Order: sequence, then structure tokens, then C-alpha cells
Amino acid sequence: MSKTLADVRYELALASRILANEGVLDAFGHVSLRHPADPGRYLLPRSRSPQLVEPSDILEYTLDSEPVGRSTDKLFAERVIHGCIYEARPDVMAVCHHHAAAVLPFCIASMQLVPVFHLGAAVGETIPFWDQRDEFGDTNLLVVKPEEGRSLARALSSHAAVLMTHHGATVVGKDVRELVSRAIYMCQNAQYQLAAHLLGKVAPLSSGETRQAGSINSMPNVIGRTWEYWTMRLDDAGRLPPHGASTSDRARLRTKATPARGRRTRR
Amino acid sequence: MSKTLADVRYELALASRILANEGVLDAFGHVSLRHPADPGRYLLPRSRSPQLVEPSDILEYTLDSEPVGRSTDKLFAERVIHGCIYEARPDVMAVCHHHAAAVLPFCIASMQLVPVFHLGAAVGETIPFWDQRDEFGDTNLLVVKPEEGRSLARALSSHAAVLMTHHGATVVGKDVRELVSRAIYMCQNAQYQLAAHLLGKVAPLSSGETRQAGSINSMPNVIGRTWEYWTMRLDDAGRLPPHGASTSDRARLRTKATPARGRRTRR
Amino acid sequence: MSKTLADVRYELALASRILANEGVLDAFGHVSLRHPADPGRYLLPRSRSPQLVEPSDILEYTLDSEPVGRSTDKLFAERVIHGCIYEARPDVMAVCHHHAAAVLPFCIASMQLVPVFHLGAAVGETIPFWDQRDEFGDTNLLVVKPEEGRSLARALSSHAAVLMTHHGATVVGKDVRELVSRAIYMCQNAQYQLAAHLLGKVAPLSSGETRQAGSINSMPNVIGRTWEYWTMRLDDAGRLPPHGASTSDRARLRTKATPARGRRTRR
Amino acid sequence: MSKTLADVRYELALASRILANEGVLDAFGHVSLRHPADPGRYLLPRSRSPQLVEPSDILEYTLDSEPVGRSTDKLFAERVIHGCIYEARPDVMAVCHHHAAAVLPFCIASMQLVPVFHLGAAVGETIPFWDQRDEFGDTNLLVVKPEEGRSLARALSSHAAVLMTHHGATVVGKDVRELVSRAIYMCQNAQYQLAAHLLGKVAPLSSGETRQAGSINSMPNVIGRTWEYWTMRLDDAGRLPPHGASTSDRARLRTKATPARGRRTRR
Repeated sequence: MSKTLADVRYELALASRILANEGVLDAFGHVSLRHPADPGRYLLPRSRSPQLVEPSDILEYTLDSEPVGRSTDKLFAERVIHGCIYEARPDVMAVCHHHAAAVLPFCIASMQLVPVFHLGAAVGETIPFWDQRDEFGDTNLLVVKPEEGRSLARALSSHAAVLMTHHGATVVGKDVRELVSRAIYMCQNAQYQLAAHLLGKVAPLSSGETRQAGSINSMPNVIGRTWEYWTMRLDDAGRLPPHGASTSDRARLRTKATPARGRRTRR
Repeated sequence: MSKTLADVRYELALASRILANEGVLDAFGHVSLRHPADPGRYLLPRSRSPQLVEPSDILEYTLDSEPVGRSTDKLFAERVIHGCIYEARPDVMAVCHHHAAAVLPFCIASMQLVPVFHLGAAVGETIPFWDQRDEFGDTNLLVVKPEEGRSLARALSSHAAVLMTHHGATVVGKDVRELVSRAIYMCQNAQYQLAAHLLGKVAPLSSGETRQAGSINSMPNVIGRTWEYWTMRLDDAGRLPPHGASTSDRARLRTKATPARGRRTRR
Repeated sequence: MSKTLADVRYELALASRILANEGVLDAFGHVSLRHPADPGRYLLPRSRSPQLVEPSDILEYTLDSEPVGRSTDKLFAERVIHGCIYEARPDVMAVCHHHAAAVLPFCIASMQLVPVFHLGAAVGETIPFWDQRDEFGDTNLLVVKPEEGRSLARALSSHAAVLMTHHGATVVGKDVRELVSRAIYMCQNAQYQLAAHLLGKVAPLSSGETRQAGSINSMPNVIGRTWEYWTMRLDDAGRLPPHGASTSDRARLRTKATPARGRRTRR
Repeated sequence: MSKTLADVRYELALASRILANEGVLDAFGHVSLRHPADPGRYLLPRSRSPQLVEPSDILEYTLDSEPVGRSTDKLFAERVIHGCIYEARPDVMAVCHHHAAAVLPFCIASMQLVPVFHLGAAVGETIPFWDQRDEFGDTNLLVVKPEEGRSLARALSSHAAVLMTHHGATVVGKDVRELVSRAIYMCQNAQYQLAAHLLGKVAPLSSGETRQAGSINSMPNVIGRTWEYWTMRLDDAGRLPPHGASTSDRARLRTKATPARGRRTRR
């Protein structure tokens, strides 16, 4: 049985809040999903901090990043990032743009981010750089024009992520759970690479290891475990999304995220 | 409709607590606002840690930093920082003095802080240094005499912030929300610059990028989003200011800060 | 009076959650205990994040890492780590495999971890490295085949821990409390060693100091204090394991972990 | 009116918990006070983690570190640190021994800790080192023999603190509040010095600045503010000590620590 649109909206709000709770997103950054029934559209919240996103905040866009149905909501200035990547990459079903503290130093020092541990292999062997200045000169660094979004998508090419000089990163996935895992472990990878750089010489995984370990995060065994863990942590923070979907939908979606039975009611 | 004085007091207590909750202020540091009706006066709490400030703690001062109406409260020793800057800078409506962990290393190593990402551009292209020792010799480093405050204001000049050697920083804004954003992103900028320095060579934004990106934090779209986010985090910490203003005032002021509907009552 | 199996299951769930709460384990990693009545078997949870493990999640395995009694649960892919070490090391009663942030940089830069403070001496004078690639070429870095587990056990040899290149660490103990202490202080030792490396030259403990200080963590005085402390912190996080054991068992087991009498009911 | 012994016990439990809550103490470390009525005795808790200490845990010792009245409690192995310092330093009224993460790197790399910001001046211009190995050869690094305690006290000499190689630090004060401030700001100073070292060249305060700024933490204005702040943070963590003193005593002691009126009951 395929997911209803209400399921997908709930899952997007959950992903948005998980990524904020794990330190990938903060006041800024956004996550989108390609529309489950129409590959020519995508779902993205109205302009709001990701830890506050509710299912009812989620709007529908065409791939040229125009809202479907006239909206009076404030929209993310950088939504072309999503539209242009869905346009260029039919395999991509989920996109996250962020300014995580873990990756910013790499975007400032222009240091290559390389896979340094098995879970970090999710980012692939190469993460390209994109410097808006190269093609557009001095800007305010926001990606707001369609040609800026298309330039970024070209730099991303067939990779899993792209680093944006002086700005942040954009990560893609074949579904929302792969995206969330990849974004989180890319940040951990960056932290470990920086610390290893301070200790001595950074030795990356080999090409073969990167290819083989790159799919660990997609193993059903692993996906179930990480999703339960991140949902538990979000629940502990009192930040699960409100119920925009019907009760039965939610019960089904949250099967894997039941809090431990021994969980205390206070914290 | 202009804000009432009660609104402004509430907003100052909120700003003070947000800056403490985000790690800019701790046991020390203080925020002030120019009096909304009288440019020759300013509002500053009595001597108290910023995360505890209540609207009723807020006193009124003349620009020579004398309290208006005889006060039996303990006052901040360093209030001349505020008075002297309001005197010297008619464009400044809000001032924050702090010892944030993120900037102290720059104040100790005398390393120039430069904008390294788009949101960090809020601090401008140059942040001057001020070393109290240069003009006043050995002191306890507190800025307590009018001539010390005036010297600091001269060093600040027309900039957005000044680093104080072995001491901390003072940041200014054209309103309370610009000040809060600038102080928070200046700290993030410092953290990223230090980490990038460890990774390799720090490349700052160009002058044109700094000028253009410097106003992102003032975009209405962005101000609304960040203010809601920081207020949500303060609320999660159980630290919203008590109600010094009337109920209707508060309802109006907090419109943008309504907690997510799905918010759990426990945490 | 020897512990019942229910006691041991509860203690394993508690250890698992303490190690997660102290930052040794996260979404991944696992702890096992040798079966208290049958040295040819061991106890390990079903595949689940360690902070969520309940006594009822704990399964029994033979030393060739086959579950005892057919199980429909998802199992940890890397359970051979446990079986092969219990096989090779009759003195080992408890095993923890983890990817702690503190040790990963050493696994990436291949920097020797050495005891640098008295509590860190619990890891012993030498921690060997094991690189799966040396014997097995390109893999996904997971230790899933019996021959991989046996190779790791050979590298561990008679030591207290082994660092796994690009992957993490495996730590052993003569009982669950020694294991928990050792795993936690090994991580602290790694953090201090990295920071000391940044400050200047790292001077390790002498051999004699390492030998003598290595048993501090096993002093009854110390074990009681640390166990009470970590349990208090887990309780503060609302994460004590649910009651899988009978009430009287639990009362007995938690004697040392009574929350402070003045503890507030909210947090 | 002088404090009752019950007041002093409560204040010691509070100090112990504040230092744990601020990251100076953890599972280990201890704080003591000289007996308010008898300079030949001191007060120190039974062996327990500092965040759990209650007024009723506090025992009385002679200066040769023997408990007054036969005790069945477990005692701190390192209590001679306290007795020997009270013996050697009549001016000292409070002692803290700790292994804080911030100072350990200096104890490992033997890097001189120097005052680098105004509040850090509380530690004075020079902090001596003591390496137990110099006089006693290989030990387990615990300070348990009277001659070890006396050797440490000689190294401390007339200073405010001493760094213990591969072990931690011991800090003294002329009263409990000076001690708490000094221990906390010594740790902040260490963190800033390490970060400044990474950025460039560390410039310490001048001798004159250190002398003048060294008393900021003792200004009544400042003591009131910091004590209220740390108590508020401890209260937020749900960790205020239980009521061992009478109600009126407590009301008097906590005057400065009333939680903000707007404080929410949940957190």
C-alpha cells in the first residue's frame, strides 16, 4: 500500500525536526521531498525554522519552484535549490540544504571532505565544491535565481552532496530516510576528519571500501535502528510533530518509534 | 502604533534571556536599548545575570549613565559602555557587552575576526580591537570610568562591533532584533573561523559579498524565522521572562513565538 | 548469593543505557555479557539502539554467535565480535563494541592511544590496532564473518581494548562494571590526549604508574561511586530500563542508585 | 550573626553540586570547608559523587584527616589533600580537588596555565605544577599518604591552585564562594588559553592587571550575581540539595537564589 499524502507530510515534518534535533539544521536550512504521486512537483514547508515545522506548514511546488495554489505564506528564498535539483536528477526523491557547524569549516578553508569511517561512506568518494562567486561574482550568497539553482545542480552532478563555499551544503537521497542518515553521518564524518587532521595524517577509506560501506545506512536492519533512535531523541526533547495526519495514519507511521516501555513520564 | 514602554521592557528582558540561552551571555554581560521616546536616555537591567532579568528589573539611565530616580538597586559597574556608545552613535538603538567563549580566543591571541560565511557578514568587514592597557595602563580591565567608555566608543567608531583585549566584545544594532542576530552570528562566525584555521587557510568573504550578505539578518522573512526559533528554544528551557507587561501587550508581542501546536507539556 | 538471570539481563540493559548516556554508544554499538551459568554462551540484545534496550530484548547466543532457540528478531550483524572474543579469552566476561566520537580520530589518523591520566590507565599500556583491510582487502568494514571476528580477537590478544581502523573500538572487562568504567575512561583519555597534543607534547604515564593506576576503577570504593553517578545521570535523562525483573530483584539491584532525597519531581 | 553548622553543611553541599553542574567535578573530585568554629577541623562529605552530596553526608575530620567520631561510611581515599593544606595554610578556608576536562590537557602536556582574561585572573599569576613521581616514584597517582599530602601542600605554597601532573588540580579559597568562582573561572581560563593557542600566540595579562582583576570575583556585586546564576542553573537541572537544614535556615541562605518569578513549572 503506498503512502498517503498525509503520511508523506508527516514524515517530512518528522525528518525536518530530526535533522534539527541532531544539529544538522538550526534556525535555517530546509528539507523537501518529491511529490509521491507527481514527479513534476515537490513538497517544502513555508518559511519556518525546521524544528517548528508542522505537517500543515508543507506546501506544494512545481519544479520551477512556484507554489501550487496561490499562497499568502512567506516562502523560503532559496527554494530554487530544491526545484533545480529535482529537475536535473530524476533519481533524487529528497533534498536537504543546511549550514551545519560541522561542515562550515570545510566550506571556509576549501578543504576536501573525504569518507573517513564506515558510516561516513554514505557521502560517496567525492563531494564537489560550488562557489557562487565563480559564475555570479559578488552576491549575498543566497541561491535565489533559477540560474543559480541550475548552476548548483550542475556542480552536484551525480554526487550525493555538494559543499557551498562560505555558505553550507546540499545533500540528496533516494528517499527521506537515506537523506536523513546521509546528512547526519556526513556531519559526523566532517567532525572526525577535522579531529583526525589535528592528530596527524587523515587516511580516507579506499574506493572499494567507500563503495561497499556506502550502503550500510540503507540496510533495513540499520534504517530501522537509526530511525527509532533519532525519533526517541526527538521525543525526549518534546519535539515530535503535531498530529496533522489521521490517528490511524500516525499509528502506522510511528510503529518503529514507540518509546521504551520503561520511559518515565517526567524527565 | 508605536510600542509602549512596557512592550520595550519585555522585549529587552526577552533579548537578554535569548542571548544567554544561545551562549552569548552567561553570568556576566548585559544588553541595553535606547529609550523609545527619549534618545537621551537608555534602558538597562539592574545588576543581575542576563538569564534571570525580568521586565521589572529594567532601569532608566541618562547618557552619562546615572540612574533616573534614585535607585537602591545594585547597578552594573560597566554601564558607561552603554551610555558612551549611545552618546557617540546616534544611529545605535541597542548595545550588548559580553564575554562569549567563542570570541575570547580572538581577544587573547589578537587574531582578526573576519566574516567567513553569509550570516557572519552581519559583523561587517572589519572589527576593530580595543586594549584598555594602551590608554589606561594596568587596570582590572572593567570599563567603569566615563573616559574609558568614551575611549571604547572611539575604537568602535562606525563599526558594528569591537573586540576588547583580554576581556570580550561589545556589539551594536539599529534595533533589538538586529543586535541579537548580529551577536549570535558573530559568535558562530568566530567558531567557524577558528575551526577553518585549524583545517587550513581561512578565506573571508569579499568586500562586495560582505556588504550584500550583511543585510540578510535584517530581511523580514529572516527576522521572523530566527526570532521564533530562539524564542522556542528559550521556552523549551523554561526561561521565558515573567509577565511584566499587560496580557494584551504580551499576546501582541509574542505572536511570532507561539510554540508548535504539537508541543508536549512535559519535556 | 549469585545473581539470577533476570538480574543479569537488567544489569546488561542498564550498562547499555549508561554507555549511551555517557556518549560511548549512540545509534550503534552493543554490549554483551558472558552467560552467568554457562561460559559457552553469551547474552546480547536484539538489534536495537543501546539507549532503548530493555531486559526483554536480550537474547542468548552460543559462542559461534547463533541465537539459542529460533528467533524472529533482527540480530546485530556484528555479533561475531562478541562470540569470537569470548571463545579466545576465557577471562573476559563482558564486551563492548562502539564507534565513540572520542576514539574515531585515533582510528582515522592511526595515532597510538596511550594512558595520559590516572583513570585512563584502565586501558593498559598498549592498545593494538586492527585494520580489516590488511587481511580481508576491501570490505564494508562490518565484522560479520567468523574469520573476521577471530582475526579481531587475535589482534586484541591479551589487551583490554583494540582500535579498529576507520571503524571504532572493542573493549573487554572481567565484569560489567569494569567494562563500563574502562569504556568511559578510555574515551575521556582519548579526548584529553587529543587536547594535550594540541597544547604541546603528550607525556604518557610510566609503565609502573599504568599498572598501579590501572586498578583504581576496580576499587570497591570507586565502583560504588561511579555506578551511583552514572545511574543518577541516566535517571535524570528519564532513561532507566523498564522493569523486566521482579520488584524485589530490582530493589536489590538499585540499592546503590537511589536518587538524592532532595530530588525534585520535575526537571 | 554567624552561620550555624547546619548552614555551613548546606552551603558545602550546594557548592559541591554547583561545581559538578558547571563541569568542574564529575564522578570524582571533592570540596571541603574548614570547620567554622574550630580551625583544627574540616568538613568533607563521605565518599560520594559531588552532584549527589547531601548535608547529611558531610563528616568532620581532624587536620590529620581522621574522621571525628567513629564512622562506618566509606571515606575519600584522597582526604589528606584537604587536611594537609588546612594545616599548611591558615588563610585557606575552602579546598577543591578535581579532574576537570578543561585542565587535564595542561596536566598532560605540562603547559603553564596563565591568566588570559579578567575573570581568569582569579587564579593568580603563577600556578605551580606538582608531579607525584618526582618525590614518590611510580604510584597509582592517588594522594593517600600524609607525606604525599604534605608534598602537594608545599608545591601549592602560597598560590591559589596547583596543577597535578597526569591527575588534575587542587584549588583553594578564603571562603566557599571565592573557591567556587575561582575553580569555575580557572577552567574557563584553561579553555580559552587552549583555543587562543590554536589561533596564534597567547598573550597573558600583565602582573598589574592580574593583581587588580584578581579580586573582581570577590566584589560583593559580582559574588551575588554569580551565586544566583549558578544556583538557578542547578535548580533548572533539578539538583538543589535536599533540606538538611531547618526551614528558616534555608530561607535565609537561599535569599539570593530565588528562581525567576516567570519560571515555568515544567521544563
